[in-house]
Amino acid sequence: MENPIHDHSDSEQLAADIEHIHKLAAHLLEHYSEISEQLTLPELHANAKLQMLIGILHELHPADVAAVLESLPPKERVLVWKLASPEEDGDVLLEVSDSVRESLIEAMDKSELVAAVEDMEADDLADLADDLPTHVVDEVLQTRDEEERAQVQAAMSYEDSQVGAVMNFEIVSIRGDVTCEVVLRYLRRFDSLPDHTDKIFVVDDNDILQGVLPIRKLLVADPEEIVENIMAKDVVKFRPEDDVEEAAAAFERYDLVTAPVVDENKKLIARLTVDEMVDVIREESEADMLSMAGLDEDEDLFAPVWDSVKNRWVWLAVNLVTAFVSSRVIGVFEGAIAQIVALATLMPIVAGIGGNSGNQTITMIVRSLASSQISNAQAFRLLKKELGVALVNGLIWGSVMGLVSFALYHNVGIGLVMVAAMTLNLLLAAFLGVMIPVCLEKWGKDPARGSSVLITAFTDSGGFLIFLGLATIFLL
Amino acid sequence: MENPIHDHSDSEQLAADIEHIHKLAAHLLEHYSEISEQLTLPELHANAKLQMLIGILHELHPADVAAVLESLPPKERVLVWKLASPEEDGDVLLEVSDSVRESLIEAMDKSELVAAVEDMEADDLADLADDLPTHVVDEVLQTRDEEERAQVQAAMSYEDSQVGAVMNFEIVSIRGDVTCEVVLRYLRRFDSLPDHTDKIFVVDDNDILQGVLPIRKLLVADPEEIVENIMAKDVVKFRPEDDVEEAAAAFERYDLVTAPVVDENKKLIARLTVDEMVDVIREESEADMLSMAGLDEDEDLFAPVWDSVKNRWVWLAVNLVTAFVSSRVIGVFEGAIAQIVALATLMPIVAGIGGNSGNQTITMIVRSLASSQISNAQAFRLLKKELGVALVNGLIWGSVMGLVSFALYHNVGIGLVMVAAMTLNLLLAAFLGVMIPVCLEKWGKDPARGSSVLITAFTDSGGFLIFLGLATIFLL
Repeated sequence: MENPIHDHSDSEQLAADIEHIHKLAAHLLEHYSEISEQLTLPELHANAKLQMLIGILHELHPADVAAVLESLPPKERVLVWKLASPEEDGDVLLEVSDSVRESLIEAMDKSELVAAVEDMEADDLADLADDLPTHVVDEVLQTRDEEERAQVQAAMSYEDSQVGAVMNFEIVSIRGDVTCEVVLRYLRRFDSLPDHTDKIFVVDDNDILQGVLPIRKLLVADPEEIVENIMAKDVVKFRPEDDVEEAAAAFERYDLVTAPVVDENKKLIARLTVDEMVDVIREESEADMLSMAGLDEDEDLFAPVWDSVKNRWVWLAVNLVTAFVSSRVIGVFEGAIAQIVALATLMPIVAGIGGNSGNQTITMIVRSLASSQISNAQAFRLLKKELGVALVNGLIWGSVMGLVSFALYHNVGIGLVMVAAMTLNLLLAAFLGVMIPVCLEKWGKDPARGSSVLITAFTDSGGFLIFLGLATIFLL
Repeated sequence: MENPIHDHSDSEQLAADIEHIHKLAAHLLEHYSEISEQLTLPELHANAKLQMLIGILHELHPADVAAVLESLPPKERVLVWKLASPEEDGDVLLEVSDSVRESLIEAMDKSELVAAVEDMEADDLADLADDLPTHVVDEVLQTRDEEERAQVQAAMSYEDSQVGAVMNFEIVSIRGDVTCEVVLRYLRRFDSLPDHTDKIFVVDDNDILQGVLPIRKLLVADPEEIVENIMAKDVVKFRPEDDVEEAAAAFERYDLVTAPVVDENKKLIARLTVDEMVDVIREESEADMLSMAGLDEDEDLFAPVWDSVKNRWVWLAVNLVTAFVSSRVIGVFEGAIAQIVALATLMPIVAGIGGNSGNQTITMIVRSLASSQISNAQAFRLLKKELGVALVNGLIWGSVMGLVSFALYHNVGIGLVMVAAMTLNLLLAAFLGVMIPVCLEKWGKDPARGSSVLITAFTDSGGFLIFLGLATIFLL
């Protein structure tokens, strides 16, 4: 993966390639069954298209092939997958999302699967193992030595949210009592160094981590210098049980390229690399955004309708229940509405502004919780600030809408109730916008999960209650 | 920045340190004016706290100091800033967000500012220059040579969204016709190599980029080997005018650590490094999340109330206008509501489910637009799928709510109108949830910007119109 074939100055070229693949795949769909059997077609014109598609695919970097597959609907996806260069199958499988990976693996037979994964590194194999049929994993593991089998099993034993699930075992380690010259000679004996090797790990006889020797230092050091004297001893290191998002944050903060992973005795067992951490950062931010809206993170854009229905089911049901509650709140005031129909027209304004403003607050808090913890004292201060913002907005916009309501219905009371209700609902929105995510976080839950649905529920019911309640008290 | 002092196994330690700093800063606030003058306090107890705070701060990595400053309210922030180790001032300024940076720079006098930035690399200086007083920038630039001044000016001439704004000028380049032995000897003459040096750029006499020599290859190569024979010629490279988010996506896709930046003649001018790209990825995802909710990306968590009011102003105003439109839609049906008050209690359910479901759709589309472009054919397919999901959900949940409405009001007509209105509003939500972001993207606008506010506006007005309209036709 070290020489991406695509030159960025042809980034438009890549976009054009993808568009082209889409068109070719759509055209070739009618020959689906013939193509599954062999990679030529009897009809000249169709065959030319087929060969062109194969040609483009074989020139793409595996990561780009993965992007193409993600962007295709299921049937075209399988067609293109069958045409992609088989020697890159493994790399592509590693790059695609979980749901797309499932559909690709389904389209492969056992021998294709074994061929795709048999040369994989232990950590990559562990990544895929959950999605592969058991007999494929067993067959591939049989060809590995004891150490590698243990590595695969170790990596598989950790949760996806733990460092252990993304660590990799390609480590280069040396002793501290040798000279730089010796290190350079030692390195030269490798056929190739692992990707992203920016430092060499220094260990003692028992593989206990002593420090790291950055390659940048090794290259400028006097060859006679002893490693121990120039290595960095204060090392950012991780444990396999550590939270992977915290590790990614540390990579971001300290600008790391690789970092050692050690066990409880500081024995070096693996390393983390920045490319995995970049994926973690991307996924983390996306997961926050999706889960605020009440979506599972794994929905394939072209998932079958029924899968999508199931994915969105829970939060729609929650929304219906809360909407029903709002509806019952209004039901309590049916008498008031029957007397003053204007209340029915104005109440959605109160509820709507609360929902919008609450969403702004909650989004800010969720974002800041993602990057650091908020102490109790700070939560209190934030609450004070958000309440201040709500008060200002409530008085200003409430007055505007109060005047508008007065102009519409020529009733001072309705105008004043509008001002009061909007201000109070904005204060409620601010209060809950801070408290919901902060409390979820304190209770160890994901503060983003469905938070947008929840806040809207409260500001709807609350808005109706406040507005219709005030109207009942002061206008009837 | 290469030896972060913090050991991750004390990641709890860091959290504890931050909590501790918060407490000490709050306690010391009353001595604010005394501390500004000198770094000791007459009172023993207070002085002990002050010295402890200084001690903790001086042990933290600049990135951690930046995180601490971000998490503090304005006054404590300035206090802690005054106590932080001055030799790290420049690094901290580079790490904090724009709004916090402003408040820190305000708290510094000219000599402190000059001291903080005078040793900075050209690209870092260019980053800060916009926020610094002009006379500070001028003074610092005077000490630089012609080449560096040109670099600072070049970097400053690009938009924040362009590669030119984040590229850095610390490049190590060699000729292709030398042996690896010569390269190793050349590198040894450096005092230190730039951060993140994972490859050396190979150029000709005119600095035209010929290829790259990965350090990993250099280290295992035969010393007699000629660079040209082992360098990679297909290089992912960028232009200063390129979009920085596309560059970040390429780093993510191709697992890059550094990449060359070249001008229109392929002359090597700078490089990009993964640490900057990680920041771009983080900011991009956050900006999407914030802008969906109608928030500017730059709001400081502890910004003064008035700044926050201004930040959220526009979208609240948009929301009010749309809520007013919804209200007028209801107003048209005042007669119907006066006859059947139940309509007022049920209408928010129809609007609410549309808003929720539309937000789910729009979030998915915004996310997928962020990672790749969607062709017209695909947009059409997505639309079909989302309409399918909406139809299923509408019929299922619509029937549930139809039954509930029937149970509440013993009126078959109301139940049937409910089923029809919910289904139609979900279809509207799906249609707009796909069309709004896709059209915004096609028109070259940010598809995330305020999209959540917009969809809710349409599903509210639309929901009221559909429900009350159907009720007027069939129930009156």
